[in-house]
Amino acid sequence: MPTLGVTMGDPAGVGPEVLLLALARGALPGGARVRVFGDRGVLAERAARLGLEPPAELVEACRLAPGEAPPGAYTPAGGRAQVQCLEAAAAELGAGRLTALVTGPLHKRALVEAGAPGPGQTEFLAARLGARLPVMMLCGPRLRVVLATTHLPLREVPGALTRAGLVELVRVGAAELRRYFCPDGPRLGLAALNPHAEEGGLPGREEREILAPAVAELCALGLQVEGPVPADSLFAQAAEGRYDAAVALYHDQGLGPLKALHFHDAVNVSLGLGRVRTSPDHGPAYALAGTGRADPTSMRAAMELALAMALRDRGAPP
Amino acid sequence: MPTLGVTMGDPAGVGPEVLLLALARGALPGGARVRVFGDRGVLAERAARLGLEPPAELVEACRLAPGEAPPGAYTPAGGRAQVQCLEAAAAELGAGRLTALVTGPLHKRALVEAGAPGPGQTEFLAARLGARLPVMMLCGPRLRVVLATTHLPLREVPGALTRAGLVELVRVGAAELRRYFCPDGPRLGLAALNPHAEEGGLPGREEREILAPAVAELCALGLQVEGPVPADSLFAQAAEGRYDAAVALYHDQGLGPLKALHFHDAVNVSLGLGRVRTSPDHGPAYALAGTGRADPTSMRAAMELALAMALRDRGAPP
Repeated sequence: MPTLGVTMGDPAGVGPEVLLLALARGALPGGARVRVFGDRGVLAERAARLGLEPPAELVEACRLAPGEAPPGAYTPAGGRAQVQCLEAAAAELGAGRLTALVTGPLHKRALVEAGAPGPGQTEFLAARLGARLPVMMLCGPRLRVVLATTHLPLREVPGALTRAGLVELVRVGAAELRRYFCPDGPRLGLAALNPHAEEGGLPGREEREILAPAVAELCALGLQVEGPVPADSLFAQAAEGRYDAAVALYHDQGLGPLKALHFHDAVNVSLGLGRVRTSPDHGPAYALAGTGRADPTSMRAAMELALAMALRDRGAPP
Repeated sequence: MPTLGVTMGDPAGVGPEVLLLALARGALPGGARVRVFGDRGVLAERAARLGLEPPAELVEACRLAPGEAPPGAYTPAGGRAQVQCLEAAAAELGAGRLTALVTGPLHKRALVEAGAPGPGQTEFLAARLGARLPVMMLCGPRLRVVLATTHLPLREVPGALTRAGLVELVRVGAAELRRYFCPDGPRLGLAALNPHAEEGGLPGREEREILAPAVAELCALGLQVEGPVPADSLFAQAAEGRYDAAVALYHDQGLGPLKALHFHDAVNVSLGLGRVRTSPDHGPAYALAGTGRADPTSMRAAMELALAMALRDRGAPP
C-alpha cells in the first residue's frame, strides 16, 4: 500500500487546517495511507476547531508548547518546528519509506533562520536527497510551467541565463516529464526573455545569443522544444494544448499566467529529486489561519498528484 | 450618428480579413457607421475570397498595385501602405471627425522604416495627437492591465522604473479609467517587480525604494491603489474582482496573465490620447493571412469597446 508523507508546514499558518480538510475529502489514489509530520497539539487543536479527526498516523517531529506558535504570524518557535518536520520527512523519503511527499506551506524565513541552503523547500530537499539539479514545476489542470530560475530578483535574471544552463535544465525537466507524465516525451515551449521575441531587431539580444542556440541544441538531442516563444502567447498556447509544458525563464513570467488560470488548484512539483515531492501552490496565509476558511483545494490536488506521479513512475531515465 | 474609423493594418496580414469578418457580425453599438482606411483593391480581393461585401465607406489612404503586398509576408510597399492609412486616420481622429478609432494589426517594422517616433501605433498616435503620456492598457472580459513600460528589453526594465514616473503614469491611467470605465474611480493594484514581494528581505530592493513609496504617494492623492502586490497573485486577484485594473511594470508581466485568460478576446486600448483608440490584441499573423481562418473576435471586441468607451465618455478630468 502506498504511503504518502505530508508535513504540516508553518503551525501558525493554514498548513495544518488545509491538511486536515484535504484528508477529510476522502480516500486517496491507490488507497494510500497518510503519514503526517507535525505537532500533535497543534493538529489536535486545529482538528477540534474544524470538527474533524486528527491524523491517524503521526510522526511527532517537533514539540510545541501550547500557545507557542498561535495562528496568525510567524514565530521563531514555529519556524523551527516547520524545519524539524521537513527534516524528518526528507529522511524518510530518502530512505524509501514514503511513496511520495507533500510539504505544507512554510515561511521562507524558517529555512533562512535554520541556515538552509536556499530559500525554498525544494533546495532543502535537493540537498538532503543529494539531487544535483532540482527543477521547479507548477501544474494546473490546463497548464504546466517549468521554471528556469526561481527566486532571483528580476534585475539578476538576464545575467543568470546561459545556453549550457538552460540545456541542462530542460533536459532534466524533459526526462522527468517523460518519466511521470508524457511517455512519448513532452512537447516543450521555451519562453522568450524580451517582448515580441519574434519581431527581429526590436528588443534585446538574449533570444539570438542564448535562447535560440539552446533550443537548437535541445532539438539536436532529440527533444521536442520550440522557441523562444513570446512570453505573452506561450502560456496561452500551452494551455490550449500546443505544449505539454512551458519553460519560463523566471518566477513571475511563469507563475503570473499559471495563477491567472489556476489560482486555487495549482500544485508545485519538484522534478529531479529522484523522489516525488509536491506542495500546494500557496504560502502560510497567516490572515486566514485558524479561521476555517482556508481552501484545501491546492493541498488536496498536491496529494492526488503526488500519488498519481509515484504510481505511474516509469523509472529514472538511463 | 457615431462614426468609427478602422484602419486595415498590414495588407499582407490578417488585418483586412478580420476587419471584414468583424463588420459582418452585424450592427455596432449606437448604430455607428464605419469608415475604413485602406486599399480598395486589397479589401475587394479579400472580401471576394470571403464572400463578403467590401466596406461601404472607404478612405483610400494608400494605393497598392495588384499583387504588390500579397498575403503572407511583410513587404516595404505594404509597410508604407499601413503607415499611410494610420496617418490619414490619425488626422481625422485629431480633427474630431471620428468618434473613435480602431487600428488594424501592423508590423512594427513599418513604423520603424517610416521613421516613426516609437515602435508602436500608440506612440505614433500620441505624437500626432500631441498627447504627452500615452498609457497602454489591455482589456479582456475579466481583466484589465495597464502597462508602466511597453517594449523595453527585460534587462532595461528595473532601471526604467522611478517613483515619479510611476505616480504620473498611474494618475493618467486612473483618470482615464474613471472617465471611460469606473465612475467612482478605479481600484488599482500595482505589481511588484521581484518574486514574493511580500516576504521581507528575500528579493530585490525596488519594492522598498520605488514601488511602495509610489503607492503611498498615489494614496495620498486620493487614489485607491494597493501594492506592490506579488505579480503571481495580482492578476488572478484582479480577475476575481478585487481590482478594476492591474498595473504591470513591464510588457510580459502584464500580457502573460492577460493572454492566458483572454487569448482570443483581449483588446488593446490607448489611454491618455484625448481620443478613444483601440486595436485587436494580435499581430498581422502572416501565416493565417488570406486563408479565411483568422479569428475576428478580438477585432470585433475592439470595435465594440471603442464605441462603448466613446459613448460613455465622461469628459476629460479637470
